[in-house]
Amino acid sequence: MERIPVGLVGVTGYTGMELARILAHHPSFELVTATSRAEAGKKLVDIYPFLQGMDMGSIEISQPDPDQIAKACSLVFLAVPHGAAMDMAAELIARDVKVVDLSADFRLRDAAVYAQWYGLEHRHVALIQEAVYGLPELYADAIARARLIANPGCYPTSVILGLLPLLRHDLIETDSIVADSKSGATGAGRKAATGTLFCEVSDSFRAYNLGKHRHTPEIEQELSRIAGSSLTVSFNPHLLPINRGILTTLYTRTTGETPTAESIHELYTDAYAEHEFVRVLPLGRLPETRWVRGTMYCDIGLVCDTRTNRVIVVSAIDNLCRGASGQAVACANLMSDFPLSEGLAMAPLMP
Amino acid sequence: MERIPVGLVGVTGYTGMELARILAHHPSFELVTATSRAEAGKKLVDIYPFLQGMDMGSIEISQPDPDQIAKACSLVFLAVPHGAAMDMAAELIARDVKVVDLSADFRLRDAAVYAQWYGLEHRHVALIQEAVYGLPELYADAIARARLIANPGCYPTSVILGLLPLLRHDLIETDSIVADSKSGATGAGRKAATGTLFCEVSDSFRAYNLGKHRHTPEIEQELSRIAGSSLTVSFNPHLLPINRGILTTLYTRTTGETPTAESIHELYTDAYAEHEFVRVLPLGRLPETRWVRGTMYCDIGLVCDTRTNRVIVVSAIDNLCRGASGQAVACANLMSDFPLSEGLAMAPLMP
Amino acid sequence: MERIPVGLVGVTGYTGMELARILAHHPSFELVTATSRAEAGKKLVDIYPFLQGMDMGSIEISQPDPDQIAKACSLVFLAVPHGAAMDMAAELIARDVKVVDLSADFRLRDAAVYAQWYGLEHRHVALIQEAVYGLPELYADAIARARLIANPGCYPTSVILGLLPLLRHDLIETDSIVADSKSGATGAGRKAATGTLFCEVSDSFRAYNLGKHRHTPEIEQELSRIAGSSLTVSFNPHLLPINRGILTTLYTRTTGETPTAESIHELYTDAYAEHEFVRVLPLGRLPETRWVRGTMYCDIGLVCDTRTNRVIVVSAIDNLCRGASGQAVACANLMSDFPLSEGLAMAPLMP
Amino acid sequence: MERIPVGLVGVTGYTGMELARILAHHPSFELVTATSRAEAGKKLVDIYPFLQGMDMGSIEISQPDPDQIAKACSLVFLAVPHGAAMDMAAELIARDVKVVDLSADFRLRDAAVYAQWYGLEHRHVALIQEAVYGLPELYADAIARARLIANPGCYPTSVILGLLPLLRHDLIETDSIVADSKSGATGAGRKAATGTLFCEVSDSFRAYNLGKHRHTPEIEQELSRIAGSSLTVSFNPHLLPINRGILTTLYTRTTGETPTAESIHELYTDAYAEHEFVRVLPLGRLPETRWVRGTMYCDIGLVCDTRTNRVIVVSAIDNLCRGASGQAVACANLMSDFPLSEGLAMAPLMP
Repeated sequence: MERIPVGLVGVTGYTGMELARILAHHPSFELVTATSRAEAGKKLVDIYPFLQGMDMGSIEISQPDPDQIAKACSLVFLAVPHGAAMDMAAELIARDVKVVDLSADFRLRDAAVYAQWYGLEHRHVALIQEAVYGLPELYADAIARARLIANPGCYPTSVILGLLPLLRHDLIETDSIVADSKSGATGAGRKAATGTLFCEVSDSFRAYNLGKHRHTPEIEQELSRIAGSSLTVSFNPHLLPINRGILTTLYTRTTGETPTAESIHELYTDAYAEHEFVRVLPLGRLPETRWVRGTMYCDIGLVCDTRTNRVIVVSAIDNLCRGASGQAVACANLMSDFPLSEGLAMAPLMP
Repeated sequence: MERIPVGLVGVTGYTGMELARILAHHPSFELVTATSRAEAGKKLVDIYPFLQGMDMGSIEISQPDPDQIAKACSLVFLAVPHGAAMDMAAELIARDVKVVDLSADFRLRDAAVYAQWYGLEHRHVALIQEAVYGLPELYADAIARARLIANPGCYPTSVILGLLPLLRHDLIETDSIVADSKSGATGAGRKAATGTLFCEVSDSFRAYNLGKHRHTPEIEQELSRIAGSSLTVSFNPHLLPINRGILTTLYTRTTGETPTAESIHELYTDAYAEHEFVRVLPLGRLPETRWVRGTMYCDIGLVCDTRTNRVIVVSAIDNLCRGASGQAVACANLMSDFPLSEGLAMAPLMP
Repeated sequence: MERIPVGLVGVTGYTGMELARILAHHPSFELVTATSRAEAGKKLVDIYPFLQGMDMGSIEISQPDPDQIAKACSLVFLAVPHGAAMDMAAELIARDVKVVDLSADFRLRDAAVYAQWYGLEHRHVALIQEAVYGLPELYADAIARARLIANPGCYPTSVILGLLPLLRHDLIETDSIVADSKSGATGAGRKAATGTLFCEVSDSFRAYNLGKHRHTPEIEQELSRIAGSSLTVSFNPHLLPINRGILTTLYTRTTGETPTAESIHELYTDAYAEHEFVRVLPLGRLPETRWVRGTMYCDIGLVCDTRTNRVIVVSAIDNLCRGASGQAVACANLMSDFPLSEGLAMAPLMP
Repeated sequence: MERIPVGLVGVTGYTGMELARILAHHPSFELVTATSRAEAGKKLVDIYPFLQGMDMGSIEISQPDPDQIAKACSLVFLAVPHGAAMDMAAELIARDVKVVDLSADFRLRDAAVYAQWYGLEHRHVALIQEAVYGLPELYADAIARARLIANPGCYPTSVILGLLPLLRHDLIETDSIVADSKSGATGAGRKAATGTLFCEVSDSFRAYNLGKHRHTPEIEQELSRIAGSSLTVSFNPHLLPINRGILTTLYTRTTGETPTAESIHELYTDAYAEHEFVRVLPLGRLPETRWVRGTMYCDIGLVCDTRTNRVIVVSAIDNLCRGASGQAVACANLMSDFPLSEGLAMAPLMP
């Protein structure tokens, strides 16, 4: 069977690199176009030396020209920063190319909220309405029918999947939620910057953007939908000295009596019974980022603390794979009528 | 001036090693005795190769004999596990030797609580009453007069110093506190164990003992004293792939209106004005574990999140120095009428 | 098509874990038996939590009984220490089961050399003669016909592949070779030991076993065969604070004039033209362990230093995959008439 | 006693930061001036947050004006890049300020060699002749009398100290030397660059600049002096995923019979008997970078490999302290008639 020709707009970051890794052995997509303003003219292997000896490495990076891309590709992954993505998305949609946008440009349904948190006026408000939030556990059907996917942020993926069953069943005080997230350094991007040099991150740990990270409104939008009413979350990110992985510890207070651990565990296993990429761990086991390294898995651990009347949920994902490029490919799979896991059935790289 | 002869009981762990590092250049203490059941007969340099070429390295490790120790030392640091420490402390106190116990054996004032959390009957209940909790910011005067110090746990040090001003001024709901702590791997000790091998910890991150870590009752005991009423804390530790450092993110809800960041900052700078080892960072700056590496500093960052009505406090310490051996030496300084910072004035090792 | 049922003897180490990772998605092998004296009775997922939710995780670990194994499996991977492997290999061969032995027990063709370096008398000398050294670039045909594979050591794989073309063409002084190898900590095994704790390895670097590592005779045996005469190598390993990867820097002196870099590069690209898993990098590019992470690739970089009359070769492999379990599966592929790369076509996990 | 007022020209790099760390508690020098074109106007604590709460933090960074500096300081440390340092050195020397230059500008005695390796014409050739190479083990007396110190490079320090006794006693073939050096990432500087981002360095390892690193002529110059004849070294650096530390493995071939390990060990202990900062480890022990972390120590381990007729020397230093700023302070100590170790008597930070 012919593979579907796909494009990658923006090769210089870690999400572009991760897309290349996944697509290198995807049975049904073929990367045919890769673009970058800064790196045009080079071969892909010059940017991604790990592709040495693979066919994909010989692709010549081109300038991002919507006409050229549309001629070559049926579907395109946008791995460029927010602000830059929205125009390219509009250009490609206008040329009947399906788009999976890994930036934040189409995640927030309210353009005013976008403007407030990202400091930019949105230039394609109509497309916001059309875009589908690409979390398969919530929107698989809509994703399958979509032309434009707003691929979820890494932190929101870990928070939303962690809280979904509790909120759906109205078990927690909606003004009590604290999300303490810890992310690997790929989340900070691949731009040259002193703050993310090896010697600034290694053997250290820090919090940043407490209470004001841009993923906050995205988290609140999706959790409010699930809960059926508007809620506010205290979302607080930290930077881990690891390459990949997000672990989020979610603190909630139960509305009534603290449920038993067993009942909460059953709630979660039921909620995710049909979702192969969410793994609810047995009681007594807590997730570790390495157990999901390089994969689509979201691992969830559960603790009921009767002393403090809290349900504590720990979720772990690979921020680059599940939190970005793998999820983008999963959406592309659904949009192309492939199984969700096409090309994504990988065992975690341990250790 | 003659230096005061001191002893170290228990050389095989990281706290023993850190005591050796600090004492190696302490101007007023001289390590004269080091004991270990397992390593007796070796020289200290064989266990601590970084002492190569220093006088201290030539000390011969002996069996822990209270009579011998008492003959040689005026003050002894106990760096042995809880359960083992209490008997040695009693033996040494009985021989008029001052004791700084780095274990948990004398931290909990209620022997029943000790029995419940540590699974052991306490064999020296009378000594519990005499022991002083060795946090200089709380108990400097009592420490100076004490014969027996219960050196604080690493996590409790970071939590108590982080919350002290808020609780003293009654600004937060006492049933709302969540402490999300992240510790470097020295906190897990130096015992051979698969779970703390390099390849099990490196490039990964995990939570453990959520809601049931043994430092919980110690935290609650001291915070309750400060608050003037019994309170419960949701304390939740995590394991960082770094050697040294604890960063604790403290989530609180204010009782009334959320105070301004400026007022909270002033509260903290006032509270710690006379305490050289607590550094309240300017608003807008958050602590990093590397900024306190190898030192006694506790760095504190403050965020007032009006969206969620929370004051978020971030505290960072070096778990081995401030959280264990450095704090022990600080107590010994006070017990010997030296300045608190004697031999402890070190700049953080950066990076 | 039915998959071939295979067994894994020895689940507790990193090579067993890596076999599980690779076999989890191998299209033609099915892991049906896993054994361990220490862990018998548990499920595989209890030992390898990253298998959560995968079929393989539900395999119950059994005691290593040759009859049971032979009944269930056509081919078995031995991931037990040297000394223990040889007997199990003999038992399984006697029962017509093919064996890929990841230990050193059948690598040295001379039982006296084995006894000298491993301190053990070999108990199955006849089998040594039958065993094939499982380096596909050297012995693909013999591997395909073999019943018993001596899977190469990790260091030897990196050294042999790095020097093969130079020695085959008689270009270097055979008494001049220095191999300075640096290995990730998985190479040290998964046994609980103080020396490989996170805090003993992290943020540090050290040499060990200089001139006397047990991989030395294996390296010399294979290089001597290639060179056609007996040679001696100064092989010197170091421990890197990384999980996976070996990078070996090979120092050689040319017999005549130093060849041009271009001619050496051509020599290498020719030598490995038919070997998909060896990637000779373009001149000017040097390998990095991350570019081969999780894969079978051996990357080779070349430098001709006319100042010192040396050809310097740098080779990089993943010690667990190419240096152990992946290579074992590659051998099993050849023994089963599958393509060499069956189930092994994976892109490196970057970063 | 009044402390001597000193200046720091160039605060943005790791060597500047390390100078601040050391000077923060130096009993006899007082940092009074810190300059930077890029950061002028800020306080030192804004650049070095670890100085929070220390007097030094309140120094305002100024533009580098030689007149101002000369008015305030008796001695100045230059922590600016090569090329920039030479003019400032000349300006300060002309104003009777002593200078310790941490750049490479005055290390090579032959301006032509400087031009060849650094691609720059030297603008102050006369000063080259006056400059003293700041390795105390070689040039303590000259350092004490010098106005201008060329502070040694990090790699050269590790190589020269490792080979000194062997070369002085004519024991090795001078055309046989291979230096395989591995450095922590602070050696790559603090400039924002993609190649030294955390995610590019972490969990990986690579060689770079094989045979052509700029420290090569510096190494050859000093080793040739020691040997009494011109020699060539194959010097080959690698990048370690650690913050601090260089470990160099030195491969030599003995001219005659391989000496006994004991005789080599005696040679080294004799050579360094009077040099407190060089620690020759007992036979059987090899250095680790962590054992010298944060200190002036150079640890040396020795192996005599009779199989290959080689003496292998392993040396370890902290590249920032011994390899740069600590050594600079040691030179300043000698220039000021202080003991070599003034303010530098620190125990290694372990772990």
